Amino acid sequence: MTYQELFQHIQQKKTYLCVGLDTDIRKIPAHLQKEADPVFEFNRQIIDATADYCVAYKPNIAFYEAMGARGWESLQKTLDYIPKSHFSIADAKRGDIGNTSGLYARTFFDPASSGLDFDSVTVAPYMGQDSVTPFLDFEGKWVILLALTSNGGSADFQRLTTTDGPLYEQVLRTSQTWAGADRMMYVVGATQATALEHIRAIVPDHFLLVPGVGAQGGSLEDVSRYGMNAHCGLLVNASRSILYAGSGTDFADEARKEAQRMQQEMAAYLDQFLK
Amino acid sequence: MTYQELFQHIQQKKTYLCVGLDTDIRKIPAHLQKEADPVFEFNRQIIDATADYCVAYKPNIAFYEAMGARGWESLQKTLDYIPKSHFSIADAKRGDIGNTSGLYARTFFDPASSGLDFDSVTVAPYMGQDSVTPFLDFEGKWVILLALTSNGGSADFQRLTTTDGPLYEQVLRTSQTWAGADRMMYVVGATQATALEHIRAIVPDHFLLVPGVGAQGGSLEDVSRYGMNAHCGLLVNASRSILYAGSGTDFADEARKEAQRMQQEMAAYLDQFLK
Repeated sequence: MTYQELFQHIQQKKTYLCVGLDTDIRKIPAHLQKEADPVFEFNRQIIDATADYCVAYKPNIAFYEAMGARGWESLQKTLDYIPKSHFSIADAKRGDIGNTSGLYARTFFDPASSGLDFDSVTVAPYMGQDSVTPFLDFEGKWVILLALTSNGGSADFQRLTTTDGPLYEQVLRTSQTWAGADRMMYVVGATQATALEHIRAIVPDHFLLVPGVGAQGGSLEDVSRYGMNAHCGLLVNASRSILYAGSGTDFADEARKEAQRMQQEMAAYLDQFLK
Repeated sequence: MTYQELFQHIQQKKTYLCVGLDTDIRKIPAHLQKEADPVFEFNRQIIDATADYCVAYKPNIAFYEAMGARGWESLQKTLDYIPKSHFSIADAKRGDIGNTSGLYARTFFDPASSGLDFDSVTVAPYMGQDSVTPFLDFEGKWVILLALTSNGGSADFQRLTTTDGPLYEQVLRTSQTWAGADRMMYVVGATQATALEHIRAIVPDHFLLVPGVGAQGGSLEDVSRYGMNAHCGLLVNASRSILYAGSGTDFADEARKEAQRMQQEMAAYLDQFLK
């Protein structure tokens, strides 16, 4: 999916919601546990319930690989079920030396190798350029690089002062020389809304993937106010607040209501903040 | 495996070699391609050939997950085949917010969840403390944290000057407050041997996992001279130089010869440099 196509979906549906598929087998409603593949059945119903209100889905790879080979099968079925109209993100936080990152790229981008064909993958920047660029060798695919994350530990290293500003700013500046806004996005946590205005000055055009609204306490209004640009430039993720809005047979209905509630809030912010 | 047990194995076998199982289906000898699971069959023969000359095995997870669910099955069989006398490392470079890192920990440390029961996992430090400590919640398991890696991109961020020295030194210092030398190791590339003396001053007791000897050009002698401590404190990894020492039906014999050659060199360095 291209930058323009993504923006068109956002404009048409008046939403920049990404639904995070952090599907925990231990939290799936009891009535689904008897299914052959409870994780996929849960995801299938969540996708059916929320597709009208979001533009992206983000399976969190940890939740699938924690179940070993059968988890990868659930992931495969889930990705195959995500409509092609929705941007797909493998939230994997990968990154290694060049030849190994090349293999990770095949994992998420080469269906002939792994069966998977995501639009994008999240990548950790610590190992530098040659750990990131192998993902960009796959034409049309996106890297979503960690910049300033939503967790408490983001203060340990990301905010360390370097000779030219905090580390995360260096990550933003340096990585812009590897790819443009048409191939790269950045992860910026919603709990870091006060930094968003400054981040926008460094990366005015890029999409930001923003986790941390909902269970982690970030404000959707602040994120939208300080983060939106002329092409929206935001994908705001919600996982637990949608997936586990209900816990019984009504889980999909409750997920639909929560996704719709966020979509309506986003529609208002698009009117208000789109530059 | 404990720190003392690992050191005992090193002393008994006079080796601190770790064999990296970066098993690439595209590089496996032709005669193995007809096997039901060529990757496992290759690994099985490599392990049989090298077990006497090494103390650790390090499957590089990218090479397995690039093959999807069947890759995870090859990984499972490989780990089950690694002798319990050898320290096992999941080279996965994971790291995410706390609840997600907890799932990654289950992936590699909780056989009831994933089937896998590694001794240790490599972790990227960018997301800070709460991305690392969930791995330490598994009793007796080890975190091997990236500090200064062997690739060119290590200069992009790891060597950036912060208010208190280069970033990788901050990673070494800060992470020592999360766990001691009995539960944490650090990745330091063999191509960074000149930094090893300085790194040893910061982490005198920790084991260092050192990739980059062999195909990447690092010097085993320099690594041993500047990196060894009173408990050896080194696991030096070789992957491609052993796995692909031969390319035909003699591949295991050639791997054995190369592993033995490195073991003999290491035996001499243990005499020379063990403090």
